[in-house]
Amino acid sequence: MTMVFDDEYYMRLALAEAEKAYELGEIPVGCVVVAQDRIIAKTHNLTEQLIDVTAHAEVQAISSSANHIGGKYLKNCTMYITLEPCVMCAGALYWSQISKVVIGAPDEKRGYTSAGLQLHPKTEIVSGVLQEECRMILQDFFKKRR
Amino acid sequence: MTMVFDDEYYMRLALAEAEKAYELGEIPVGCVVVAQDRIIAKTHNLTEQLIDVTAHAEVQAISSSANHIGGKYLKNCTMYITLEPCVMCAGALYWSQISKVVIGAPDEKRGYTSAGLQLHPKTEIVSGVLQEECRMILQDFFKKRR
Repeated sequence: MTMVFDDEYYMRLALAEAEKAYELGEIPVGCVVVAQDRIIAKTHNLTEQLIDVTAHAEVQAISSSANHIGGKYLKNCTMYITLEPCVMCAGALYWSQISKVVIGAPDEKRGYTSAGLQLHPKTEIVSGVLQEECRMILQDFFKKRR
Repeated sequence: MTMVFDDEYYMRLALAEAEKAYELGEIPVGCVVVAQDRIIAKTHNLTEQLIDVTAHAEVQAISSSANHIGGKYLKNCTMYITLEPCVMCAGALYWSQISKVVIGAPDEKRGYTSAGLQLHPKTEIVSGVLQEECRMILQDFFKKRR
């Protein structure tokens, strides 16, 4: 049996992180960072639990990954994130010079692309991986909160 | 004798924070957050010490202030920051809905305004307080590093 660790595989793990956020009453966004086929960070949004607007999944994952690596720059790292990063997280990703970012659902309102921003020139971007599932968990969350 | 706690007074404290960063070999940016004439956060850039690109003075100050207040939103808070915030920090300030941001020196290359961004509509912005001193400490830092 051959295990294939492709983008969908890791995005499914990021979705599992989003589900943890959902259970906590947090906006369900999850994130996984992979370096050389090893997971070095798994995070989810914790802004309510930590009472901290900066506690987005991506910011936590960047700090955690750098700590794991022992260096500020996330070379040879891929971030899987269920929702398109916001301006803050795009700015953080820019500074990290991360190699690759794989995005689930777009965020038309608060995503960095709608703000006219770009990630670092060194960063490869893949969008729309498990897009429907990543979108549905958010839609379900906001529907229940109304 | 009357003590006047005006914008210059607090920016001078932010500059003292920038000096602490300078001594540590960090890009010298300092920050102070004030709520009802009380200082609730003093931070400086720590990206090298913490091996973390997200450890800008502003991000630390937002987390710390929210922790102090016990709420995510920095209503009735003023941030004094020696350098114009970058994209990441502007995004974090946006989410915080901070009442007022007082900026020392502009950052023509990496500042949020050059990226075409704006802070939250609720946020009052004052620029150019002790601009020359805030600029000089950075200029001196980079001159020595060359």
